[in-house]
Amino acid sequence: QSAEEIDCDINGEYVIGCRKEGDEVYLPFSFLHKYFEVYGKLATYDGLERFEWSHSYSRVYHPKGKYDPRGVFMYFENYNVEVRDRVKCVSAVEGVPISTQWESQGYYYPTQIAQFGLSHYSKNLTEPEPRRKIIEDGERELAKWGVPHPGTIERVYDKTAGSKVLKFKTGELYLDAIKLKMEHVLDFIMSLNIVLSGNSSFSIVLQNRETREIYNLHYITSDVLITVQDNNVYHGLGMNQEWKKLTRDLIVDLQKGLNYLDKDKSKRKIPKSKLKIITILLRGYGAIDNLTLSSSEHIQQFYDAAEWFVRHQDTETGGWPIPVKRKLASGFHDLQSGWYSAMGQGHAISVLSRAYHHSGGDVRYLQAALAGLKPFQVPSTKGGVLATFLNKYHWYEEYPTKPASFVLNGFIYSLLGLYDLMTIAPPGQADEAEFLFREGMISLKGMLLFYDMGSVTSYDLRHVTLGVAPNLARWDYHATHINQLLLLSTIENEPLFAQTAERWIGYMAGKRAAHN
Amino acid sequence: QSAEEIDCDINGEYVIGCRKEGDEVYLPFSFLHKYFEVYGKLATYDGLERFEWSHSYSRVYHPKGKYDPRGVFMYFENYNVEVRDRVKCVSAVEGVPISTQWESQGYYYPTQIAQFGLSHYSKNLTEPEPRRKIIEDGERELAKWGVPHPGTIERVYDKTAGSKVLKFKTGELYLDAIKLKMEHVLDFIMSLNIVLSGNSSFSIVLQNRETREIYNLHYITSDVLITVQDNNVYHGLGMNQEWKKLTRDLIVDLQKGLNYLDKDKSKRKIPKSKLKIITILLRGYGAIDNLTLSSSEHIQQFYDAAEWFVRHQDTETGGWPIPVKRKLASGFHDLQSGWYSAMGQGHAISVLSRAYHHSGGDVRYLQAALAGLKPFQVPSTKGGVLATFLNKYHWYEEYPTKPASFVLNGFIYSLLGLYDLMTIAPPGQADEAEFLFREGMISLKGMLLFYDMGSVTSYDLRHVTLGVAPNLARWDYHATHINQLLLLSTIENEPLFAQTAERWIGYMAGKRAAHN
Ligand SMILES: [Ca+2]
Ligand SMILES: [Ca+2]
Repeated sequence: QSAEEIDCDINGEYVIGCRKEGDEVYLPFSFLHKYFEVYGKLATYDGLERFEWSHSYSRVYHPKGKYDPRGVFMYFENYNVEVRDRVKCVSAVEGVPISTQWESQGYYYPTQIAQFGLSHYSKNLTEPEPRRKIIEDGERELAKWGVPHPGTIERVYDKTAGSKVLKFKTGELYLDAIKLKMEHVLDFIMSLNIVLSGNSSFSIVLQNRETREIYNLHYITSDVLITVQDNNVYHGLGMNQEWKKLTRDLIVDLQKGLNYLDKDKSKRKIPKSKLKIITILLRGYGAIDNLTLSSSEHIQQFYDAAEWFVRHQDTETGGWPIPVKRKLASGFHDLQSGWYSAMGQGHAISVLSRAYHHSGGDVRYLQAALAGLKPFQVPSTKGGVLATFLNKYHWYEEYPTKPASFVLNGFIYSLLGLYDLMTIAPPGQADEAEFLFREGMISLKGMLLFYDMGSVTSYDLRHVTLGVAPNLARWDYHATHINQLLLLSTIENEPLFAQTAERWIGYMAGKRAAHN
Repeated sequence: QSAEEIDCDINGEYVIGCRKEGDEVYLPFSFLHKYFEVYGKLATYDGLERFEWSHSYSRVYHPKGKYDPRGVFMYFENYNVEVRDRVKCVSAVEGVPISTQWESQGYYYPTQIAQFGLSHYSKNLTEPEPRRKIIEDGERELAKWGVPHPGTIERVYDKTAGSKVLKFKTGELYLDAIKLKMEHVLDFIMSLNIVLSGNSSFSIVLQNRETREIYNLHYITSDVLITVQDNNVYHGLGMNQEWKKLTRDLIVDLQKGLNYLDKDKSKRKIPKSKLKIITILLRGYGAIDNLTLSSSEHIQQFYDAAEWFVRHQDTETGGWPIPVKRKLASGFHDLQSGWYSAMGQGHAISVLSRAYHHSGGDVRYLQAALAGLKPFQVPSTKGGVLATFLNKYHWYEEYPTKPASFVLNGFIYSLLGLYDLMTIAPPGQADEAEFLFREGMISLKGMLLFYDMGSVTSYDLRHVTLGVAPNLARWDYHATHINQLLLLSTIENEPLFAQTAERWIGYMAGKRAAHN
């Protein structure tokens, strides 16, 4: 029996070519893929080819135990925020990523900075201890620097650093740089303490082990975030000539540099395994200490984020302003530059709560976290993040739009921030966070099912507030909804969360709610 | 190029057989039908076979003009309520259908009775004038009755009837019946005025023109609704020995009789074209007048419904009680026998408003319609039909469940009843209906989009009130939602209705709301 060609009329709208064999009609997957947005690919196992149909992509994480605000945040140990395309670079002034999501110039986006911090905090707990190689500490590890005339180095005690450091001074020519040659592979997280005067720089030379192509990463006294000329990538350390702790993922810095001028971001991706560090260069006048190459320095990167939140909080409102205008969708008023996000606030509070815990009680973190609660009490119409659903439910808005948008995942993230703080704050200082958390949980229980679309979930409630089509969640947001509910199930004995998560998992495999 | 067999793994859960041709993989429709619940069939046009794929069934009715409460109700001219399987029979006491939907014994279901009335009212407007043949009126049309000994007939003036009528009296044997022989085809709506004493009957003998099988329809002095013995079908006229107007669809009466004892309801369906009336029989003691056979008597059947609502309204509450217990779904409390439905009330008001209009102002209909508003002001927790959504929106419940269910189509039907009454009631008597209608429309605008599931609609909001899976509307309810919105668009200039209807029409052709 062989297949014959047959036309198939689709809803009276157009015709596609199909196959017929006996009583069965076969429809082409290329049509089904577009019509139903399902996925499929040919795969071969043990020499046998077969076709794999997937209703969805994305992953569900089943929590292994009760969520602990001192522990991993969600499943963020799997996040790698700084490598995302929408991260322009990691600021060498702040040590945190710069977003280009809504403005190509780049800006500090609190939500992203917090996710950077939370992912490094989480990785620090889940990954093995890093390999570390100290290159130069002015005391025990003394590197063999090549110092061309008229340069000098000396290892002297520095009061601010509280340790012996390597002071250097070089001539003004490019070739006058003080040089440390090496053949270093595998571990590309560089950390050091550094102070540079104007027109000075600290540089790393990387080489592609196959093509032998050379790349120079320069850290310079400048306010420029990142700039690139040929194979030279420049990151500014700011104009502040004080000691600072610098932690750099050299692979990220290189890749952001290569991508910076390049439209096709995939083209110049160089695998870590193909790279080696061949030289470290010092130019101008400055000092370094504790120069180290490691397989990771997650907790340092976490603290870079935590410190950013301490430094950049609006002391009056307690908010971390988002410095770009944002239009969520046609029908919503613009969010004006400087708006606050409940997700940004909540994430920041999650970072700061962990920093308070991890630091053994540094109150700067606690105070910033507590101040970060303020926008939760201010209506979104008055610059805060609090919306109200039909005069009944309080909702913390990821996007405090007019009219309200009620984005689900951002709201739940904000609840996690509140839960983190109420758990970690000392007795007597947890009340406001706990109040806000309890209120939010009541709203979540009352409103959760509005997001259930019977075969997918809705990202927000704009369909109700704007009177338009639902903004359905793509599968990764759908999976986030599920992951969040599964996590909440571990801290609140509420069957609604587990049952709903279970049904939503079914949606990912094509199971639908019944019709009458 | 020929198709080869290939296995397709569905979401890692099971494997189906597919075909592969070049780069294209073809999936069997039998799988797609089950997986996505889409429809398809082979059809041949001009000798060419093709496959027709339908995303949905059901029909959308685009209104031709502004909705007129004096005119056709929705598209109910297409309804044929009494032939539905869940109609046990049409009561010969009341002239209205008996439902078996929730209780196999059968009961008067106000919603169904109203739909019966509204469909006949609408057919009366859309169908051509009926053919009518008067058989006997005691005056101008005198039939040739065969009167065996000791029977008698006489045509005498009757004060109650206000006309000359045919009085009859027969012996007690079965063969003593007074007989009128005929060969009548095509028009099987029989109407007459009749009064019977106990143990008397009026019978119609039908014959299958092909098989020559005989069927007897007996209308008897009894409270039995319907009963059947062999080919004898009995409908009770009640025990009340007064003149009554009887309008019977003989085909319906026969079919309900044949189905009565039969499980397989399709087996004994006899097409109208195969039947003829061969005899009319009078037994016992009684009188008839205006015996007529017609192609239709829609307005009489409409008034049978209207009169039912006048007679069976609870004078205190204004409600038409539904005499069966009903559990809408697991999680809802039972509705106890005697509950009211906003849809039943609204439909009844639509019937009564039209009866008030059509009768030229019979106030009995207006008074019943106005009294029918009462349950709209009484909370569903206190025996009425009024629910409140999140302290904000008033909603008229088709099923006044605890917790509330917020069934959409029943709510909109109730709004149409309110609109009908506020339009038809004389000035000064429309205020309450108008107030309730306006309130309801505000709720509908505020809540409509909660029913939008992005690719289908939800029948109700049980997912929110019970915290369970949405109860998705099957396609005919989905089409009802659309038809109702299109109708409302003709009476209220609200773009939300037309835009939403347009999008929901798209869902029927597989178009989905976008995801982010
Ligand atoms: Ca040192
Ligand atoms: Ca007469």
